[in-house]
Amino acid sequence: MSQIIVTEVGPRDGLQNEKGLVPTEAKLAFLEGLIDAGVTRVEAGSFVSPKWVPAMADTPEIFQRLKRKPGVKYIALVPNLRGLEGALALQVTDIAVFTAASETFNKKNINMSIGESLAGIREVARIAKQNGMWIRGYISTCFGCPYEGKVPPAKVAEVAGQLAEIGVDELSIGDTIGVATPNQVPEIVGLAAERTSLENIALHFHDTRGTALANVLAGLEAGVRKFDSSAGGLGGCPYAPGASGNLATEDLLYMLHGMGHETGIDLDKVVAASRGIADALGRAMPSRYLQAHLAQCARKA
Amino acid sequence: MSQIIVTEVGPRDGLQNEKGLVPTEAKLAFLEGLIDAGVTRVEAGSFVSPKWVPAMADTPEIFQRLKRKPGVKYIALVPNLRGLEGALALQVTDIAVFTAASETFNKKNINMSIGESLAGIREVARIAKQNGMWIRGYISTCFGCPYEGKVPPAKVAEVAGQLAEIGVDELSIGDTIGVATPNQVPEIVGLAAERTSLENIALHFHDTRGTALANVLAGLEAGVRKFDSSAGGLGGCPYAPGASGNLATEDLLYMLHGMGHETGIDLDKVVAASRGIADALGRAMPSRYLQAHLAQCARKA
Repeated sequence: MSQIIVTEVGPRDGLQNEKGLVPTEAKLAFLEGLIDAGVTRVEAGSFVSPKWVPAMADTPEIFQRLKRKPGVKYIALVPNLRGLEGALALQVTDIAVFTAASETFNKKNINMSIGESLAGIREVARIAKQNGMWIRGYISTCFGCPYEGKVPPAKVAEVAGQLAEIGVDELSIGDTIGVATPNQVPEIVGLAAERTSLENIALHFHDTRGTALANVLAGLEAGVRKFDSSAGGLGGCPYAPGASGNLATEDLLYMLHGMGHETGIDLDKVVAASRGIADALGRAMPSRYLQAHLAQCARKA
Repeated sequence: MSQIIVTEVGPRDGLQNEKGLVPTEAKLAFLEGLIDAGVTRVEAGSFVSPKWVPAMADTPEIFQRLKRKPGVKYIALVPNLRGLEGALALQVTDIAVFTAASETFNKKNINMSIGESLAGIREVARIAKQNGMWIRGYISTCFGCPYEGKVPPAKVAEVAGQLAEIGVDELSIGDTIGVATPNQVPEIVGLAAERTSLENIALHFHDTRGTALANVLAGLEAGVRKFDSSAGGLGGCPYAPGASGNLATEDLLYMLHGMGHETGIDLDKVVAASRGIADALGRAMPSRYLQAHLAQCARKA
């Protein structure tokens, strides 16, 4: 079948909303486990103010201590020029920027209009490109907004087009609150691809209502070959009421591999990494595959 | 889009493995809530020996006390002639019989070869038809077996053909242990449809590894318009190691309705019914939609 590129978001998107501080050692072990599993793209941290996201306060230390493996993209979220300076100081080569397809969500999330956030991204991207960085752009709430409800696919495409024009290398089209159903996928992907290219589009689904893998299937059928997921199903969105459940990497890999697609990632090793971070957090992970796997282990014992 | 027929299996398949006895009153309230939601087909109980399935010991009482709504199929599982007698004595008009596509599973599940169980079904069906009953036939382990691993799609089709020849009105093709991936669906449905008809095929997926709704999507694309699900995601299979998680009715309805399909079932009312049975059981249900819904309610409060 096809080679699929999975972007692992657990160590940043997954952990950023943790109330208790996760030890830096545990995060480094988690990252190491994921890379050992064959992950080639991972969100490793966020250069955002610790006042806003205390769980990411150790991102500089993470990037200092990471043993970076050649060929792996260790992506850092960069909200503004100050974040970019922090990333540049630590030789980060791959960054992610973010905006939304819903004005109200963007305003409530980062207190900016979409236009204002695009203007900020333009400045960040200009300097990032001067420094040879690769840039990923997240577009939130592409399939629905907790405040506005439906989001016009044309609006997603417009934001995608502007990010592409700014020079963002890859777009991650996100279902931030996990409301997407598969019928939405072809239109949104098709319109966005017209403004950038199908190859540059990744899909980022949440399993909040159980539809994530059905949406991935619709994405595959629409020609998308890049998907985001979070080991164990860690994380959600703090600003969206009721939102929980990033698509679990285990569940994604189980389906993709079962369908004959290749990812280069070892599912068993992702399970091991998730179990490690679950131990550090002291709670079970929502991944369906992981839960079934652990239940089997328990019954065999 | 299309009219989809959902068969609600929560009150039987969902509850049959409960360790603690569920009060009959709670089951009746659950059934009433589901019918009030618009469910037109529901597995209401099982005429099986209470020694084998103690949780279903009150099936006769359930059928005695049920206020049967015209047009609704209240389906009773019938394992043998003795079960059929019990069903006939209570004016049950719709029954379900069962076998498997894997010899080893069938042997371990009911201590019969597939051929032996088909012979038994033939006897049950003959008398059931004489009494004007409608018959549903379950085929277990169509997408994988915990003992044999892969199950040949041709074997599923062969069993489907024999059940159709016996006079079974509808076939439920089951992924008993929740291992299916969407690529398996078109071949199995296509081969089975050749031996019966597409209209008579229902798909019964488990969400054990998160793939249930992706498999439903593949089923829809293959032309299937009948799906089984369990309110709240109640139940699993006791004989299959690690198996858990019937596809939740809430998750199925959320996707189907989002795609524009009609089911005639009110999602909010299914949620209410699931909350009732969850209270009776004293634990949370695995449905993703239900969990998200309850989290939203909690945050709004």
